[in-house]
Amino acid sequence: MSAGEIERLIQLLARLPGLGPRSARRAALALLERREQLLVPLAAALQQTAERVVSCGRCGNLDSQDPCSLCVDPVRDDSLICVVEEVADLWALERSGAFKGRYHVLGGTLSALDGRGPEELRVASLVERASDTKVVEVIFALGATVDGQTTAHYLAERLAGCDVRLSRLAHGVPVGGQLDYLDDGTLTAAMRARSPAASS
Amino acid sequence: MSAGEIERLIQLLARLPGLGPRSARRAALALLERREQLLVPLAAALQQTAERVVSCGRCGNLDSQDPCSLCVDPVRDDSLICVVEEVADLWALERSGAFKGRYHVLGGTLSALDGRGPEELRVASLVERASDTKVVEVIFALGATVDGQTTAHYLAERLAGCDVRLSRLAHGVPVGGQLDYLDDGTLTAAMRARSPAASS
Repeated sequence: MSAGEIERLIQLLARLPGLGPRSARRAALALLERREQLLVPLAAALQQTAERVVSCGRCGNLDSQDPCSLCVDPVRDDSLICVVEEVADLWALERSGAFKGRYHVLGGTLSALDGRGPEELRVASLVERASDTKVVEVIFALGATVDGQTTAHYLAERLAGCDVRLSRLAHGVPVGGQLDYLDDGTLTAAMRARSPAASS
Repeated sequence: MSAGEIERLIQLLARLPGLGPRSARRAALALLERREQLLVPLAAALQQTAERVVSCGRCGNLDSQDPCSLCVDPVRDDSLICVVEEVADLWALERSGAFKGRYHVLGGTLSALDGRGPEELRVASLVERASDTKVVEVIFALGATVDGQTTAHYLAERLAGCDVRLSRLAHGVPVGGQLDYLDDGTLTAAMRARSPAASS
């Protein structure tokens, strides 16, 4: 029906998250229709990414340099380490601009179900980094899931010997969120962590 | 925040149909996580597609050879030409296995709204192909849309001088479709084109 090259391209595109066999076909056709504007640049971008992007040996971020630009940025605060599960979480926090310290990407969570133990995650290097006297606080920015919280507890035990303050992101009502649509767990957490309202 | 290469990759991925900025980020991370299984093969597949896949000079299909494998296949019926809007439609018909003649990909429909006239479509070459004495029937497999039907009417006029039978796909109830969910147009068409029921 179509060239082997196209079939192969569709199969690979279909393995991307968010694309199924049908949308992969559409994507392949869009690429072929916009050959110079899309297909060729995308091939080049993938090639360059494969060649240049590496995992930071210190924090696990993805960058074209190792240590990554966040680890070597002289403006960022060395006394804070924010622990995240995945690089995607690091990106999300960076987009928010809410954190100006250093990161540590675990590479996932502990999971009995998926058989992922501490060896699979960047735990040992976190303990090593937290032992540095410059570090004052380690912030767990892990998912509010069973696995995320299990991981946070485990990390807290492992870091008990280090002279650092441990903290976690606040739980509560998402900004813009309507109470009506929130689950009981979130509402309970938000109620427990309630703060004084401005009386002005 | 992240390497320029990754940003560029995300921007390009976000231009694929079916992927927005958010899913493009997820796709980029999936690619980076599965570098050898996905990123490198996809880069190679895009590169090969860009180099090898061409538009068939005869029918407009995409293939690694010109004329394409469907145009040169000796088993297919030279007396039938099936006119489709896009290569995606050709693929869909090929998947169905319902047609064993030759194809002609218009490259779209006439559209007053988008300012697409006959010059933008492969109309002249269709008339030329239909003038061949071997050709007996031209089948319009165009969308049941206003633009599709306008295009079919226009093509019928252009092909009036050729000694060929013109036909179009049947309209009716989709196989597996429930009447309840069908629009009035489809139901009216299906009622008009009703056929004798088997009485056995």
